[in-house]
Amino acid sequence: MSSEEKLIERVRRRFPISEKGLTIGIGDDAAVLRPGAGAEMVVTTDAFLENVHFLRKVHPPDAVGYKALARATSDVAAMGARARYFFLTMGLPGACAGAWLDGFIGGMARAARRFGLILAGGDTTKYPKIVMSLTVMGEVDRGKAVLRSGARPGDLLCVSGRLGEAELGLRLIQRKLHAGKHWTMLLKKHYYPEPRLALGEWLATHRFATSMIDTSDGLSTDLGHICKASGVGAAVFASKIPAVKVPSELRGLGLDPLGLALHGGEDYELLFTVPERFSRRLPRRVGLVPVTVIGEIKRDKEIVLLGTDGHSGALESKGWDPFRKKS
Amino acid sequence: MSSEEKLIERVRRRFPISEKGLTIGIGDDAAVLRPGAGAEMVVTTDAFLENVHFLRKVHPPDAVGYKALARATSDVAAMGARARYFFLTMGLPGACAGAWLDGFIGGMARAARRFGLILAGGDTTKYPKIVMSLTVMGEVDRGKAVLRSGARPGDLLCVSGRLGEAELGLRLIQRKLHAGKHWTMLLKKHYYPEPRLALGEWLATHRFATSMIDTSDGLSTDLGHICKASGVGAAVFASKIPAVKVPSELRGLGLDPLGLALHGGEDYELLFTVPERFSRRLPRRVGLVPVTVIGEIKRDKEIVLLGTDGHSGALESKGWDPFRKKS
Repeated sequence: MSSEEKLIERVRRRFPISEKGLTIGIGDDAAVLRPGAGAEMVVTTDAFLENVHFLRKVHPPDAVGYKALARATSDVAAMGARARYFFLTMGLPGACAGAWLDGFIGGMARAARRFGLILAGGDTTKYPKIVMSLTVMGEVDRGKAVLRSGARPGDLLCVSGRLGEAELGLRLIQRKLHAGKHWTMLLKKHYYPEPRLALGEWLATHRFATSMIDTSDGLSTDLGHICKASGVGAAVFASKIPAVKVPSELRGLGLDPLGLALHGGEDYELLFTVPERFSRRLPRRVGLVPVTVIGEIKRDKEIVLLGTDGHSGALESKGWDPFRKKS
Repeated sequence: MSSEEKLIERVRRRFPISEKGLTIGIGDDAAVLRPGAGAEMVVTTDAFLENVHFLRKVHPPDAVGYKALARATSDVAAMGARARYFFLTMGLPGACAGAWLDGFIGGMARAARRFGLILAGGDTTKYPKIVMSLTVMGEVDRGKAVLRSGARPGDLLCVSGRLGEAELGLRLIQRKLHAGKHWTMLLKKHYYPEPRLALGEWLATHRFATSMIDTSDGLSTDLGHICKASGVGAAVFASKIPAVKVPSELRGLGLDPLGLALHGGEDYELLFTVPERFSRRLPRRVGLVPVTVIGEIKRDKEIVLLGTDGHSGALESKGWDPFRKKS
């Protein structure tokens, strides 16, 4: 057995290998799979790169594995689809092929079980840095995928969970406050984000949401994507945003909860719109995930933030954009 | 428009954007696609990394784009499937976002047209090196995918095209003989490999092939994969192997055509088995691609090379294995 085959075998052992619908999984030239009757396939790919998306010295290997899969799966949730299969291509330094890889696989396998994903294939290569790409496939009933482009004036703007929590974790890391156990809970959302699969599927199945996106780049940027794709604007009420709670001990760090919630990326919550006539039927939570109305879709193509002080102003996109020049 | 959106827009302009079966392409959280009635989806992913799979200073950008897509598509051909959609995740240095990227996209767009592939999504990030992963999806009629595991004793072993041509190109590069125009034709297979889609689909549709793989790692390694998956062995006739022709001017470099053909990787030809009773109906070429019988599947689980001198010996896998320790 070649060393690459041994590596593939080590990965394969940690994942369930067969499932109805997956005709051929790992071990042939390609996977063969069969969507359920009346279903469409939802497909997304996501790069996850050392020193861009994670730091080998900071992020525990199991968090790297968990998060890599979670963030790609979040795009499937944002279409309202059920998660089905995933593929991993990976470049890996020889020094990481032992304990690091075991931790990584452990985290990824835990995420896969949690999200209902089957590893269906991949590719591994030796490389000086840890680089990977995840392909995640889901299924949705024909015509029920929720797009970015369906928001209409008058729709309510809603968000799941709490915003800014992942960004707070990142700020703690940047300030080297992550190592001790004191702030472990505040790092959880940054290390182990939760794609909102159940909520997304619920919204799609009941045709509740007219548009949907996941908050990977931050509310201000992702709301911009919905408004642009739908040809609309929005008004957001600052007082309604479920912002991260910053512990009083950290107040000296100048962390503004509203700023973290508006522009912080990687929460992987769902941002979606529902027609106003559904407002009474809108659940306050789906499973354990709270849903909050934070604004309204407007005909005017601008995004306005209505402040707690009564003032209002344009909400500019300040989220993640890897190719933007630093000012 | 953000710089990432501008980059996506530049890529999108070069590719056709919609096609029957693709409900949602680039621009939402994920693509939505619908396999044809009675079809199964074939999915493969492939990493393509600077300094492992190509060198920025050697390989022209359009060859990088062409080859990245061709090698992933070859896995779809090796299942006997039609190529349909592809996804590109990419890390890219800022210095490559101009002319280099234009050349790269040009080569990839040419490959996509040639192979019948639609770009359905992707992900771009700034990165110090050029790293990418291709996901290619195909379709095959239900139950007709050709696996590695179907070879039976008595089957004829066949290969398409000519073996060792890509390895010859690589050797010329290693000897720095690639820059001049004199050997341009010898570099073609290394720069612009051709996935054998028409042949693969023909073999699957007519249920001619009992097993199939593409020669990405080299004949000696890829034949090993077929034999292992099928629980069989093989006899290969050295005299029948369609080996690369090494020009007489290069004979001083010690390049053995048979050695290049047996162990050289990246030809992306199809290696397949057909029942002996089909031998008379086996076409000598499909389209412009020649097909050659080079051996036979045996019950004994060993792979034997019958030399031109009448001697025979075990054929050991000496192809590409990125995690093998260098001896």
